[in-house]
Amino acid sequence: MAPPPIAFVTDYGSGDTYAAALSAAVWQVDPSLLALTGMHGVPPGDVLAGAYHVKAMAAALPRGGVVCAVVDPGVGGERRALAVDAGGHLFVLPDNGLVSYVWDETPPLSRQAVSLPISEDASATFHGRDVFAPAAARLALGASLRDLGGDKVEPVLLDAAFARHESDDEVTGVVCAVDRFGNAITTVRDADLGGRHVSAVEWAKKGRSVLAVRTYAEIPDGALAALPGSAGHWEIAARECPAADLGGPARGATVRVHLAA
Amino acid sequence: MAPPPIAFVTDYGSGDTYAAALSAAVWQVDPSLLALTGMHGVPPGDVLAGAYHVKAMAAALPRGGVVCAVVDPGVGGERRALAVDAGGHLFVLPDNGLVSYVWDETPPLSRQAVSLPISEDASATFHGRDVFAPAAARLALGASLRDLGGDKVEPVLLDAAFARHESDDEVTGVVCAVDRFGNAITTVRDADLGGRHVSAVEWAKKGRSVLAVRTYAEIPDGALAALPGSAGHWEIAARECPAADLGGPARGATVRVHLAA
Amino acid sequence: MAPPPIAFVTDYGSGDTYAAALSAAVWQVDPSLLALTGMHGVPPGDVLAGAYHVKAMAAALPRGGVVCAVVDPGVGGERRALAVDAGGHLFVLPDNGLVSYVWDETPPLSRQAVSLPISEDASATFHGRDVFAPAAARLALGASLRDLGGDKVEPVLLDAAFARHESDDEVTGVVCAVDRFGNAITTVRDADLGGRHVSAVEWAKKGRSVLAVRTYAEIPDGALAALPGSAGHWEIAARECPAADLGGPARGATVRVHLAA
Repeated sequence: MAPPPIAFVTDYGSGDTYAAALSAAVWQVDPSLLALTGMHGVPPGDVLAGAYHVKAMAAALPRGGVVCAVVDPGVGGERRALAVDAGGHLFVLPDNGLVSYVWDETPPLSRQAVSLPISEDASATFHGRDVFAPAAARLALGASLRDLGGDKVEPVLLDAAFARHESDDEVTGVVCAVDRFGNAITTVRDADLGGRHVSAVEWAKKGRSVLAVRTYAEIPDGALAALPGSAGHWEIAARECPAADLGGPARGATVRVHLAA
Repeated sequence: MAPPPIAFVTDYGSGDTYAAALSAAVWQVDPSLLALTGMHGVPPGDVLAGAYHVKAMAAALPRGGVVCAVVDPGVGGERRALAVDAGGHLFVLPDNGLVSYVWDETPPLSRQAVSLPISEDASATFHGRDVFAPAAARLALGASLRDLGGDKVEPVLLDAAFARHESDDEVTGVVCAVDRFGNAITTVRDADLGGRHVSAVEWAKKGRSVLAVRTYAEIPDGALAALPGSAGHWEIAARECPAADLGGPARGATVRVHLAA
Repeated sequence: MAPPPIAFVTDYGSGDTYAAALSAAVWQVDPSLLALTGMHGVPPGDVLAGAYHVKAMAAALPRGGVVCAVVDPGVGGERRALAVDAGGHLFVLPDNGLVSYVWDETPPLSRQAVSLPISEDASATFHGRDVFAPAAARLALGASLRDLGGDKVEPVLLDAAFARHESDDEVTGVVCAVDRFGNAITTVRDADLGGRHVSAVEWAKKGRSVLAVRTYAEIPDGALAALPGSAGHWEIAARECPAADLGGPARGATVRVHLAA
């Protein structure tokens, strides 16, 4: 049986050799693992955007698939390295909150995290190559979390990743990522709304607000609307241009979701 | 014998997990197909640029190779999904004109298109993952167009993809793509000129015009010239900088090709 | 035994089909070689930045690995094509200086270069596909430099790639690349300093200058510092933003490294 795919999620970009070094590190564990997929376009150092993409990437992989995620401004510092099993999907990543959504959305009995030992030989600046990629390769070859090493731990979660219930009728979050089509993806998940309908989504001080729809096709021409995207996060979108071109919110903007009575 | 390669041509970019989801979808049909190549940099929603890149990508593949192309602003709407055999190269793509050049440049007896069935399970927003990538995988494994399903159809072609003969001495087109080196590639193909020589290429209202050459090496230093590029499309190019830096035309600009007497 | 990996280093970007055409060309030599890794983000035509990335890429590969590098503004002109063995790592690339660091850093008895024959069938504009990728595939399959063809030659090296000793206490170089995190990487290598300590690094006419540290963690918050990066080149870096945001030097800037007494 073929080993499961390893998918990278990093902020390494495509203009340096860092991303290729990860693939090469996997290859050096076992050449049959060279065939990888992934994305290296997380904005530099943006752990919250990374957390969103880690979850989206896992959703694209079969059970057993491994996500090797590296958005790691604290590399070389005190932060731990983790290996995580969340419902049968596997993850290796720094313990800085990258695992936030994956961890939060897996039932407690189906999730487990261990700290990865960091070898003294590991470079202080490139744990992706020296720690995370080799661990991902071993998981893809069938190693268990326990085989990789460390103690069972509770991962760090990002406060900013989770929507706040401001009142019975209002949930707030922030724009955590803007995709290539200019859709502004927020931290407010459909599951955060307790089955209630959305009446409007508002942002900015002046209270720009738009109505909720369920599919892109329902967005009126030349207008913005809010809808739950493919990963279950509410987003502000336009049909044929970036949301920002019509005044939509940018990465980091606070968004208020108003619930229908 | 190894299955032929599958090459993607999409507007998914490298900053999201959409492109990796296509590879993962192929993997789930057969892990031996994971090894893929492709490009995900078509400008968002630019079907005409996509049509050019679909043709260029096919030219890079051996006979039997599969191009899985997704530039699909109409996803979830009425547009059909297609599987196409054009001279032994295979394509899966939305029926929005992406196949224009490939179809036009294949003799009628060597081309065939069928509509792909769209399962009710397919998400309304992500046919790349749910419809096109799985169909590409099946073609790479040896399925025929007929095995995939639907009726024989005539594909939609883009009017804008084809040069117009304005007079005996003039053919007009538009800039359909600008490559990384800043060469402005037009819809006017060498084959549209009936064997005639080009005397000059002109653009913009004011009639900026340049002479024709046959190779980049013939372009004078610090100047623009027009020449037929590697895919047979006339382009406006400079030698060591983007054509736009010297006043060359942008995507969408109308270009007039004057033929020598 | 699996063939070694082939890694590309090119300026083809991700918005065209040129990069995929290289992978397809390798596939056509042997489908078992399709699984590749690499980077295509060298700034267009920037041979000096390419030379840096060629070296960094090789460092990521195991012995026997093949780097196929194409930054080739002189394609179609007089420049030779090379195959190089440098300490057991293999390279195919235009003879325009791309091999500068790799060649310079390999002992003379462990390095060898031969000129690659350029077939008359090769397109005048796309030696990546027609010359370099097929040669890389043959090297990965076990061909020797001699099997590939041409005469033993001495490669062209870039003067600009090498630091100058201005005095006993000063070494000068230039910024040869800026990575995704905004670190300004210079041509001054740790090995150029003869074991001396760095007291300060200075750039620009006005003499902006920063102190040297050894790791990113030592860079003071909100400040710039200089340190030797993962490939042994001194760089100017900030901790959480691009160096340029704090007045750091751009690609091409001259940098003066002052040595401690």
